[in-house]
Formats: sequence, C-alpha cells, structure tokens
Amino acid sequence: MTLGFIGLGAMGLGMAQRINKDHALKVYNRSSEKAASLVAEGAQQATSLQDFADCDIVCSMLSDDAAVEAVYLAGDTLALPLKENSISISHSTISPPMVDRLVAAHEHANVRFLCVPVLGRPDKAAEGQLVAVAAGERSAMDEARSVLEAISTRQFWMGPTPRQAAVTKLGMNFMIAAAVEALAESFTLTRKAGIDPETFLTLITETLFSAPIYQAYAPLIAREENPTPGFKTALGLKAVNLAQQTARDLRVPLPTAEIIANQLRTAIAAGYADEDWSILARLMAQTASLPPIKRR
Amino acid sequence: MTLGFIGLGAMGLGMAQRINKDHALKVYNRSSEKAASLVAEGAQQATSLQDFADCDIVCSMLSDDAAVEAVYLAGDTLALPLKENSISISHSTISPPMVDRLVAAHEHANVRFLCVPVLGRPDKAAEGQLVAVAAGERSAMDEARSVLEAISTRQFWMGPTPRQAAVTKLGMNFMIAAAVEALAESFTLTRKAGIDPETFLTLITETLFSAPIYQAYAPLIAREENPTPGFKTALGLKAVNLAQQTARDLRVPLPTAEIIANQLRTAIAAGYADEDWSILARLMAQTASLPPIKRR
Repeated sequence: MTLGFIGLGAMGLGMAQRINKDHALKVYNRSSEKAASLVAEGAQQATSLQDFADCDIVCSMLSDDAAVEAVYLAGDTLALPLKENSISISHSTISPPMVDRLVAAHEHANVRFLCVPVLGRPDKAAEGQLVAVAAGERSAMDEARSVLEAISTRQFWMGPTPRQAAVTKLGMNFMIAAAVEALAESFTLTRKAGIDPETFLTLITETLFSAPIYQAYAPLIAREENPTPGFKTALGLKAVNLAQQTARDLRVPLPTAEIIANQLRTAIAAGYADEDWSILARLMAQTASLPPIKRR
Repeated sequence: MTLGFIGLGAMGLGMAQRINKDHALKVYNRSSEKAASLVAEGAQQATSLQDFADCDIVCSMLSDDAAVEAVYLAGDTLALPLKENSISISHSTISPPMVDRLVAAHEHANVRFLCVPVLGRPDKAAEGQLVAVAAGERSAMDEARSVLEAISTRQFWMGPTPRQAAVTKLGMNFMIAAAVEALAESFTLTRKAGIDPETFLTLITETLFSAPIYQAYAPLIAREENPTPGFKTALGLKAVNLAQQTARDLRVPLPTAEIIANQLRTAIAAGYADEDWSILARLMAQTASLPPIKRR
C-alpha cells in the first residue's frame, strides 16, 4: 500500500510522522524544507502533487478552505491527480460547503472520499493520540483503518455523508471555544473578588470539570502562561466563524457564538493572532484592570 | 456536640440526613411535615428557631437571599438565637452583599460564621457526595470538619473572608450554566445537520469533555429527557443573575452571561420555571424547528 500526505504544518507533521512509522509514506509541503525531518525518518519527498498519482491512500492536513481548494480543485473538477478507486482523506477543518464540493469532484473522478477532521493539539498529533471524526463510505473507512489508527486513539464514524464529520468537528470546536470563554470569564470574576486562581483551578479541574479540555486550558489561564500555541487565536476565530456560517445555513440559533467571535476578533485586533487562544482570558483580565499574575 | 439544621428542601433534606447519621441533630423547616422522615431517623424536630439557642453548630440551606434574611436577620442584627462562640454555617447560594451582612451580624453577636455553599445536585446531597466550598475563620472550619465531611467528599477553603466562598460558588455556577448553554447550542447545530445525537453524546463525554458536568447534562439533552429537576430553570436564572450582579459590583465583564440569562428567561416565560434547566436545549431545538427526539 502506497500512502501520501500533503501539508506538514504543526498538526500535519506530527500526523505524517505517526503514519510514516508503519507505512511507506510520500510527503509534500508547499515549502519543501518542512519535509526534512520526515525524509530523515525514511519518508519519500514528493516534488510535486503529480507524485501522488500512484498512491492508494492520500491524506491532507491544510489550514483552511482556500488551501484545500488550491490543492484539490480546478473549478468543479479534481485537480489533484489520484488514481481511480484510491481513497482520499481530508483531515482539515473546513466548511461543509467545501466538503460538498470535494465530494462531487472525487465522485466524478471515481476516487473514494473521506472527511476525517481530528480533535487534539499538535502535541497529541505527534503522539498519535488524536481523536478522528470520520464520515464517508464505511468500506473506505475500514480500508483506511490502519492509517486512522496510526494518528488517533479513537475513531468516530458520524455517517455516510462526509459533511457530517465536518459539522461534528465544528460543533466540537464551538464547545471548546465556549469552554475557553467560560474559563476566561469565571477566572476574571473570581480573581477580581480576591480568590486565589490556583485554588479555583484545583476546584474546577478536580471536581465538576475534570476533563481534558479544562485540564489543558484552565492552568494556562490561571497562570497566564504563554504556551507554544496549540491553537492560535486566528484559527480559533476561523473555527467559530465556520460554526456560525453553518448555523446560518442550517437556520439554527447559536447565540453565544457571536460573543465568542467578538472576543477573538478583539484579541486579534490587539495583536494576538498567533498566540494560543487562551490569551482571551488575559485580555479580559486586563479589561477588568487586574494586574498580571506573577509566574511561579 | 449539639447540631442544628434549618431548611429541608431538596438539597437540605439530603444534607441533614447525612449529618443525622453521625450526630444528634435538631432540624427545622418552615413547613414542618418535611422533617417527618428525619424524625423517623432519630432527629429532633425544633418547634421554632428559638430551639437552636443551645446548639454548638447550626447549618442552614435556604433558597435565596430573602429566605436567608427572614431566618437570620432583623435589620442589621442577628435574629436567629445562637449562643456565643457557636459556629453558624450558611450553605445557601446567596449574594456576596448578603454574606457581608451575615458576617457583620454574627460578629456583633460573637458567633463564628462560615459561608459554605455546596456543589452537586440533590442526589449527590443524599449520598453525602457534595463538594463544599468554604470560607471564613480557618479554626472554625477545622472545628466543623466532621459536619462538612458528613455532607461532602471534598472541602475547599477559599480564604478567611466568607464572601470568597460565595463568589467562588457563583463562578462555578456560571461555568455550569455556560456548559449547559454550549451543549444546547452544539446539539441543536449538529442535530439540524443530521448527526445522530447519541454519537455526538459519546464523542463529547468520552473524549475532551469527559467530566461529571457533561456526563450529567449531555445525556438529558441528547435524549430530551425530563428528569426530576436537579436544578430548576428558575434557580438557574437566580444563579446567573447573582453572577451578573457580582460582576457589575466588581466592574468585571461577563459577556456571555447576559445571553445565558436571556435563554433562561425565555424558558421561564415558556412555562419551564420548575423544569430542570437542561430544558434550555429543548427550547432551542424547537426554535430551530427540530422534531422531538423519540424516546428509546
């Protein structure tokens, strides 16, 4: 089985490294130097997208709709040269309408298409500990199982229509955004009342909210840490905007999303686009005239 | 040691039952028939609040500021007859200014006051599995430890100023309200996109959001269950309103709270004041023209 991977950003690199452990892997990135570490680990560097024409499964992890369009599409047809009956997997978080366009283009080219966005930050990607949210033809998913298992500890099949995975991912991202915003608001409120953030942190993460998402973000917020961005503020706004667009298309109210998007826009306006989106909390603390937290 | 407990509502009854297991307990409720089961278990029924004058520790669990004022205060002085140097514990979720009034009145009467709101729904109260959020004089908390341990598995001491526990509780309640609202919005979005609520439920509760609060509320929302109210919509609005009032007093932004309060007001206007506040999700699903979920 010949495998290909396109897009070696913070997430894609870790995912490709995991797949490369068990499979012969051909990799491609727009700026080719990102492939160096993978080539050192035995991966083959593709010189152009044409090199994927012999692959059985080709995955991609790209930043947004525009990047996905540039790689896959020429108008309504599939520009990426994939062989008939191969499996094409999109891991990117993109809009449901873009997924629908990919579905149509792949169908026309007789290539099986799976939409498999992932949950987890770059550190989880490097450890193969992502959660895969998959939709598309079930038999294709079964054939691609070893690839999905290389990158993820859990695989959820959301249904036969690829956009179902895309909407599920948007729903999860919205939940995460809402959790980050709730942490920002509640830490600001309690700090302003003179409550020790470390005690509030313990209360949250060891009782009702003892879940990975709070264990990841609450310490960053309680300590005002500047982590290597796991999820940049600009990506956070993209995720919430996609959820809002989908809600508009489906005629669904999503009342808190507008406030969260506004907070993210404010953070970006303040110059924090490339910071981890937990920066929302620091911005809110500043708005409330709280002094910076002393690092321990 | 003689103990007293005032207020035998859904929460108070369970808490009093737990304390009654290990201590001689005198109990009081405005409508006295609520004490019957406790009296059957050996508790002594107080005929009036005067009966607490010989107690070493008196706890109360009342519904709101007004009920607390009626039991404890006559203007600025302590109306509840408590002996000097006894310990008075308020478990109710009340406003920080009301806590400050209780502090002043107890101080004047030489009674030690602890503010100890609890986290957990009535089923947890009956099992002694609450989380106690305590503030006040540390030595009084140590003396009252056996009482707090009878009702809770974890005790957090937030500091020497009783209002610190009150604000912490409001911050936690706000986090819970934000979680219920995020579930309502994300389930509505994904259901409208044709995603199976049971699969989305599993994804949430077994991955990033595997925490007690989501394990409690997400199934109610995914299945549109009508549980015995653990937390009524009217109480939810009270909790969010208290957080907002505190945020206003402290000059803290709390941007999503207004939206959540508005959703709760809408639910109450629709006649759901006495339903569990997870009803928010059903109301949102109706707004999005989703059909009722079939019960399994």
